[in-house]
Amino acid sequence: MATKVHVGMETEMNGNGRNGVPEMVKNSWKKRLLDFSGKMKRFTGCLWRTIWKAGLEDPRRIIHAFKVGLCLTLVSLLYLIEPLFKSFGTSAIWAVMTVVVVLEFTAGATLCKGLNRGLGTVLAGSLAFLINYIATRSESVVRAVFIGAAVFLIGKNCSYIHRFFPYIKKNYDYGVVIFLLTFNLITVSSYRVENVLKIVHDRFYAISIGCAICLFMSLLVFPIWSGEDLHNSTVGKLEGLAKSIEACVNEYFNDPEIKENQDKSSEGPIYKGYKAVLDSKSIDETLALYASWEPRHSRHCYRFPWQQYVKVGAVLRQFGYTVVALHGCLQTEIQTPRSVRARFKDPCIRLAGEVTKALMELANSIRRRRHCSPEILSDHLHEALQDLDTAIKSQPRLFLGSKKSQTTSNMLALAAAHVARYKQEKDHGVSLASVKTESSAFLEWKRKRVGREEAKENERKALRPQLSKIAITSLEFSEALPFAAFASLLVEIVARLDHVIEEVEELGRIACYKEFNPDDDDISVTCKRPPVDVTKNQLPSHAF
Amino acid sequence: MATKVHVGMETEMNGNGRNGVPEMVKNSWKKRLLDFSGKMKRFTGCLWRTIWKAGLEDPRRIIHAFKVGLCLTLVSLLYLIEPLFKSFGTSAIWAVMTVVVVLEFTAGATLCKGLNRGLGTVLAGSLAFLINYIATRSESVVRAVFIGAAVFLIGKNCSYIHRFFPYIKKNYDYGVVIFLLTFNLITVSSYRVENVLKIVHDRFYAISIGCAICLFMSLLVFPIWSGEDLHNSTVGKLEGLAKSIEACVNEYFNDPEIKENQDKSSEGPIYKGYKAVLDSKSIDETLALYASWEPRHSRHCYRFPWQQYVKVGAVLRQFGYTVVALHGCLQTEIQTPRSVRARFKDPCIRLAGEVTKALMELANSIRRRRHCSPEILSDHLHEALQDLDTAIKSQPRLFLGSKKSQTTSNMLALAAAHVARYKQEKDHGVSLASVKTESSAFLEWKRKRVGREEAKENERKALRPQLSKIAITSLEFSEALPFAAFASLLVEIVARLDHVIEEVEELGRIACYKEFNPDDDDISVTCKRPPVDVTKNQLPSHAF
Repeated sequence: MATKVHVGMETEMNGNGRNGVPEMVKNSWKKRLLDFSGKMKRFTGCLWRTIWKAGLEDPRRIIHAFKVGLCLTLVSLLYLIEPLFKSFGTSAIWAVMTVVVVLEFTAGATLCKGLNRGLGTVLAGSLAFLINYIATRSESVVRAVFIGAAVFLIGKNCSYIHRFFPYIKKNYDYGVVIFLLTFNLITVSSYRVENVLKIVHDRFYAISIGCAICLFMSLLVFPIWSGEDLHNSTVGKLEGLAKSIEACVNEYFNDPEIKENQDKSSEGPIYKGYKAVLDSKSIDETLALYASWEPRHSRHCYRFPWQQYVKVGAVLRQFGYTVVALHGCLQTEIQTPRSVRARFKDPCIRLAGEVTKALMELANSIRRRRHCSPEILSDHLHEALQDLDTAIKSQPRLFLGSKKSQTTSNMLALAAAHVARYKQEKDHGVSLASVKTESSAFLEWKRKRVGREEAKENERKALRPQLSKIAITSLEFSEALPFAAFASLLVEIVARLDHVIEEVEELGRIACYKEFNPDDDDISVTCKRPPVDVTKNQLPSHAF
Repeated sequence: MATKVHVGMETEMNGNGRNGVPEMVKNSWKKRLLDFSGKMKRFTGCLWRTIWKAGLEDPRRIIHAFKVGLCLTLVSLLYLIEPLFKSFGTSAIWAVMTVVVVLEFTAGATLCKGLNRGLGTVLAGSLAFLINYIATRSESVVRAVFIGAAVFLIGKNCSYIHRFFPYIKKNYDYGVVIFLLTFNLITVSSYRVENVLKIVHDRFYAISIGCAICLFMSLLVFPIWSGEDLHNSTVGKLEGLAKSIEACVNEYFNDPEIKENQDKSSEGPIYKGYKAVLDSKSIDETLALYASWEPRHSRHCYRFPWQQYVKVGAVLRQFGYTVVALHGCLQTEIQTPRSVRARFKDPCIRLAGEVTKALMELANSIRRRRHCSPEILSDHLHEALQDLDTAIKSQPRLFLGSKKSQTTSNMLALAAAHVARYKQEKDHGVSLASVKTESSAFLEWKRKRVGREEAKENERKALRPQLSKIAITSLEFSEALPFAAFASLLVEIVARLDHVIEEVEELGRIACYKEFNPDDDDISVTCKRPPVDVTKNQLPSHAF
């Protein structure tokens, strides 16, 4: 600010001569021009960088843009080349229109729109022809009234039905709009044109050519599949959740200073991880809808199981909500003191690590289209849960007297046993070790329950010398209340992981994934690219 | 199945005579026809009921359908009435097309599309005219190549830019498509037509007329406002969350048999309540986008605060995730025994009741466009929290010795104090009572903390006789672990309620709500209609 004023004063002082005022104006204009050109340079630089970045992020965008350009040029040839124009005439304009409207980013979306457009045109043409056939028998005024009434009725009913029936809206929305459009255009113009059949005929051919060019481009030239996007976004969501849980647990047990620093950046890694999962419903459904239109396009067997991907997405959202609640434990006002948390740091981090590993294994299983490793899911998780169990047992001061503490962590033992049992029921004979641990945990629990009455007397005696300890740590128990919520949510996450595993295994079954082979993972080298944000490509447009 | 076989046998037996085979065929045809007509009757009956129900649910749908019919008929008059057709010619078809494409359910959506279409047409027309001006100077072949290149470049760049820049995609998506469409149509047809200016001129007039009819219908004849939908859906979401929390807490403390029955119906009242909140992001943003295009249309001051509604929606989603986690406590495998839960039934139900009441008050505040009652939010919640606190204090057997239990529930006292303090900071001088409770809770907590060391010795002595009790209830503490999570989440919900209140109050401030008057609520009679499901009307279409 100070420099500006100074500069201003200088120019004023310079301008005290004869040609003072014009020189001042000239100078200020020069300065403005320089400023403006500098701003423009910066703006164009920024624009270029953004465009370049968008291209680098997902090169398919550049391919798609070239495809659009090429399609439009091809279809323009109908107008530009003399012999073609002679055979099509001005109807060729409908082919141009079709290309602009139908060509979408993915093959599925283009197919969906193209077939909708075709179907809508055929139906509307037939109906318009029928109405025209009835109307031609009457005189001019009656005919006009008849056409007006038909337009009103069909318009009213189409608008009412297509807008409020979710099934039609979802699958044939575009077709209904095209039906309404074509019907009106043909019916209305039939009043002035003699040969309606000719109009219908020409228009249909032009639209067919437009659709054919679009379908050729999107299905055969560097095709982009919605199914692939759905597949990759599912992998990305699993990885995001894994990272989220890991970051969440790490932050919970970290020093407050580090946490403060992380809070300053508006979107932490935790939020970034689960963000994509939470609002994935509409994008998943759109991708699945388009994928459902796509033909089989890979060596993998049968059709693309888009319904199962939607189910996996729903289960992941449910899973995500629990992760949000876990994240809530970090943000809440009431916190367990760090000294108390620190005692459970290792088992919790290990449990979270196992959940993360399981999610990453699921992600890898989907990415490589192979069944997931059977043991990585049950045994290690089971062990991690028992670790947490042991950790709580080894902190008798927090959860009542040392002798009795073995009964206090029954919940976790039960959870561990449950995970093991669930796994057992599904994959018979995976590992005998886990059966043993499971049944021993159960027997232990039952024995305790039965023998509790007898044990009480002994415990009472044994506990007496430790009473002072209990009194000292009484506050710590109360402060462990929020930690109990945290631990409970972690266990809940493990429980929900079951559902995720179930749906992913079902996906593997339906999509005929190849069998798990531990050697494969060591050999295969995956090129690491940051995951593509499909929402940017697939935003359900409110326009065409 | 049995009857079918029987009937089949009968006809076979009847057909054993001379004309057996033809009679059999005739009978089976008759039966099929009867079957078919019966099916058709049932189908049409079902269709009618669905259509009728959709209309009853939201009569605006019927109004909208009539508006579409009327608009189409009006615009058809350009073709049907002789003098009008003479002045417009075949360009009138563009007006029909505009009406089909632009007329949307709400005024905001129509305005957004209409203005986008106008802007796109003007820009594309200008650019096409410029290119045509350059191209006319060269010979035919060069001209064709030039036009082809222009179509390719503009098509490629438009597709690349508009698809991958969220801001353009969000606000001007339709405009870009229309730009591309109009540019191609004019540029390509300019090669065959001499007077391009005439095309541009005619088309622009026709589209203007179409837009004008659409805007007139949607803004002046029974207008349907996106802003109103956004407003009502926000109210509905608040009420849904309130019902969800109430049902959730009731179910948690209810008998297992009742729970079993409820589980059988696939979607319980709890899920129904928060379902709309979870996936509200895209619908909220679409409604807000359209609302941002709408002019001021009510007596309320200033513009419609759509941004604040989006903020309220975001806070409600965050709130909703915690409710999902609370619901998760009901579904989880590890459960606190009902006998233990029963001890906290009353305070928990009361706390949930107060949260419910607060949410309903917020919903009423938004519905009636008045500020929310200042005391209903702070004092009662505060009391309910302290109730839960007291309940935990009065269950010494669950949470360690009776004397010490006063220190164990510090967390809840702190939460209650926090709620009270938060309220105090925001609304100075609302009630002195809550200040007192707050400060006394804080002082008590501090005093305990300081005096703990001295008290320990006394406590140790006082506790000794109660040791047996502790031993007996040791298991109950461990079983209270999942309940701790439930209680923690309830407290978390209270903490998040603060944010919701904050944003709703901000909304009231921005939208100039009238002051709260307790008498108003008694007088005003609200006609209870089931809330309209806006998603059905506003699904972001993937077509036009």
